[in-house]
Amino acid sequence: MKNVRLMDFRYIQDPDDAEFYGGLVPIEGARDIPFEIKRIYTISGMQPGARRGYHSHRDLEQVLIALGGSIKILVKTPFEEEVITLDSPAKGLYIGPMIWREMFDFSPNSTLMVLASKYYNEGDYLREYEPYEREAREYFSK
Amino acid sequence: MKNVRLMDFRYIQDPDDAEFYGGLVPIEGARDIPFEIKRIYTISGMQPGARRGYHSHRDLEQVLIALGGSIKILVKTPFEEEVITLDSPAKGLYIGPMIWREMFDFSPNSTLMVLASKYYNEGDYLREYEPYEREAREYFSK
Repeated sequence: MKNVRLMDFRYIQDPDDAEFYGGLVPIEGARDIPFEIKRIYTISGMQPGARRGYHSHRDLEQVLIALGGSIKILVKTPFEEEVITLDSPAKGLYIGPMIWREMFDFSPNSTLMVLASKYYNEGDYLREYEPYEREAREYFSK
Repeated sequence: MKNVRLMDFRYIQDPDDAEFYGGLVPIEGARDIPFEIKRIYTISGMQPGARRGYHSHRDLEQVLIALGGSIKILVKTPFEEEVITLDSPAKGLYIGPMIWREMFDFSPNSTLMVLASKYYNEGDYLREYEPYEREAREYFSK
């Protein structure tokens, strides 16, 4: 799907006792992901049935990672739609410009970590679906 | 303690239903924390009794955050020592240069997220306590 892709990160384990010490996932800005990390946010404490997101960004790029459990992400444009399950700290979902997204089915105690290419900018958000759809039709028809 | 301090981040909740939608913690590089975020790593899957860390950095600055549970951090120099419990996504532990650190007592399914000021550089690590202690005595006596 355009402007969306799954990324695999390294999961580094202790060669002597992989189970005991868990795993370390390193992510370097502009190396492991395609942008410098200007902003991070985490979402935690989501209850069963809760759903968040419901917006798109005009320019912002993000990478979403599920920590401590699994989280489902709906990514959508006027032309394509997909539901992706994030269930590993070593799996990232890259979301580029003009993608509508909704996050749901957070497993108990899971945290969504989001890495973003820019500082917060309210002007970059499209929070209503109809105006989003109009802009997105034009954007993806180019 | 020198080069160590606790930080409180914003925990943004939906004013209409704070419990249901959990909370969002935003962290902007060079704004909410004192450095640009060049690298992030997560540590997950730690078993009870496992302990990691056992090193210091000469220059690197980091912010540690516990996600999905609680984690204890021992921070130590030749002159001071403290154990800090991280138990909220809105609490960060800043660790500057020349601090020995050990991480332990990870609660089930917790994840340690670490934000770092530089890319990985093996030459910046001090992995043996005695050479660390010699350098740290000089560093903190200045």
